[in-house]
Amino acid sequence: MGKRIVIALGGNALGSTLPEQMTAVRTTARAITDLIEDGHQVTVVHGNGPQVGMINTAMTTLSREDRSCPMAPMSVCTAMSQGYIGYDLQNALREELRNRGLNRPVATVLTQVEVDPKDPGFQRPSKPIGTFMSEEEAEEMRRRGNAVMEDAGRGWRRCVASPLPKAIVEIDVIRTLVDAGQVAIACGGGGIPVYPTEGNHLKGAGAVIDKDFAAELLAEELNVDSLIILTAVEKVAIHFGKPQQQWLTELTPEEARKYAAEGHFAPGSMLPKVQAAVKFAESAPGRTALITLLEKAREGIAGKTGTSVRQA
Amino acid sequence: MGKRIVIALGGNALGSTLPEQMTAVRTTARAITDLIEDGHQVTVVHGNGPQVGMINTAMTTLSREDRSCPMAPMSVCTAMSQGYIGYDLQNALREELRNRGLNRPVATVLTQVEVDPKDPGFQRPSKPIGTFMSEEEAEEMRRRGNAVMEDAGRGWRRCVASPLPKAIVEIDVIRTLVDAGQVAIACGGGGIPVYPTEGNHLKGAGAVIDKDFAAELLAEELNVDSLIILTAVEKVAIHFGKPQQQWLTELTPEEARKYAAEGHFAPGSMLPKVQAAVKFAESAPGRTALITLLEKAREGIAGKTGTSVRQA
Repeated sequence: MGKRIVIALGGNALGSTLPEQMTAVRTTARAITDLIEDGHQVTVVHGNGPQVGMINTAMTTLSREDRSCPMAPMSVCTAMSQGYIGYDLQNALREELRNRGLNRPVATVLTQVEVDPKDPGFQRPSKPIGTFMSEEEAEEMRRRGNAVMEDAGRGWRRCVASPLPKAIVEIDVIRTLVDAGQVAIACGGGGIPVYPTEGNHLKGAGAVIDKDFAAELLAEELNVDSLIILTAVEKVAIHFGKPQQQWLTELTPEEARKYAAEGHFAPGSMLPKVQAAVKFAESAPGRTALITLLEKAREGIAGKTGTSVRQA
Repeated sequence: MGKRIVIALGGNALGSTLPEQMTAVRTTARAITDLIEDGHQVTVVHGNGPQVGMINTAMTTLSREDRSCPMAPMSVCTAMSQGYIGYDLQNALREELRNRGLNRPVATVLTQVEVDPKDPGFQRPSKPIGTFMSEEEAEEMRRRGNAVMEDAGRGWRRCVASPLPKAIVEIDVIRTLVDAGQVAIACGGGGIPVYPTEGNHLKGAGAVIDKDFAAELLAEELNVDSLIILTAVEKVAIHFGKPQQQWLTELTPEEARKYAAEGHFAPGSMLPKVQAAVKFAESAPGRTALITLLEKAREGIAGKTGTSVRQA
């Protein structure tokens, strides 16, 4: 019996540069098509950290060279990144589906996601974007008025505000496609962050929404059975990277909260994934969130690997 | 009785820069909402000449400064431009619709459009993109290996190949949304140009498809009643800009072809619009193409102004 699934792709599903993305989306398309071939209905959400950083740098570089070209706000850069990533992803998915005789339509829906302008996330930039820098480059970036952070021991990166998603503006459009049995790529890069101002106007926010939280909200709105959060490890662990490390197969929201409070999950890395998984599992009985590797998604949804988060 | 309409927005519907676009889309949204308020069902296509030029320049500038960042092909730049323009346009349309109590869902569908790699358009670049340049700047651009052209007496611009659209890859997705009564923005910038290679792979083409021809193909595929091509004049004229200038209200395909052969319509300007209008009018009896100003679309579809092209 097929499940209704929202899948959130991690950074390794896309790579960081144009040629990396062209290659990475093929593997990604195979993993997603595996799920569709097994009879599941899949809606895809992806991140955009490296890509939105690249586009923002390109637009900023242009506006330095050509004064008539103003800086592109982060919301506009995310919109561009949805186009850039969605194109490669829908193309690769279409090809893989057709190669297996599954002529399912695929398309990217340009998606805006509402945030609260009073979200505390606006006070402390926490979302790394763009490429890795040396400490000296990071210092120069900071001098130019940008926030920077050390990212999980891998180097320095620019970072921006990351408020929580409150509502998906184009949800009716996404739902229409999903109900028609089509494969929608939506809420790319966590969605274009906007907030309501006077009347019915939506204003772009200088932020990048966490794609796992956006995927969680989409999973709730679409009332799916499973949220799959893909990452760089097959399972969630406690004491990660230490001698007493222990992989977790099943996790209740209560256990997850206890481990999180004990500091087992790295902020900006595993912590938001576990938080998004818990939020989905708690949103209704029977809903399961799965955290695993891209290559293990098929086995994971069959209950053979990964970490499942669900109510006891 | 409401009509089913595909509307192709001209350059002035979007402006050329980020702030211009933010302002222009409000006027554009009002004109489109007028049609929806009158009971018509509207699907929107837009151009991307200035925008894809800006994005291509930004990505090229970045790749000069950062050798790790390769050049972005024109197809990728069009994908980004669909995100950039679609975001502002769907946002403005949503706002205007809601202000009038019309809570119709609106969204941009990232669209690929197939072209023929043997299209003669690849041999002679004809589609102007980006901003206007002086003759000296154009000469420098040419030295760097780009094609340039003088654009309708307004200055020099870079130009790229513009093959004809053959098929809309995401047509099923667009049709699903239109059939659900939603407002789709599709085939932006004429669509991301791709051509089939081995198996089911689609490869990006170094080109920009004419948005009027893409809109015409979409209008045929959606089997709509009317194709509206918006431009900078209220009607098509013969002897345009001369003392004996004569505005045309009705035009049959035969008349249009005769006038075109006599050189009445400027290549790269009015000529492709008339050609697209003729193609739509000839595709089935009862189909009408209308060429007029953005601000006159409502009156035009009511038969009060513009140039209507239909079979006698």
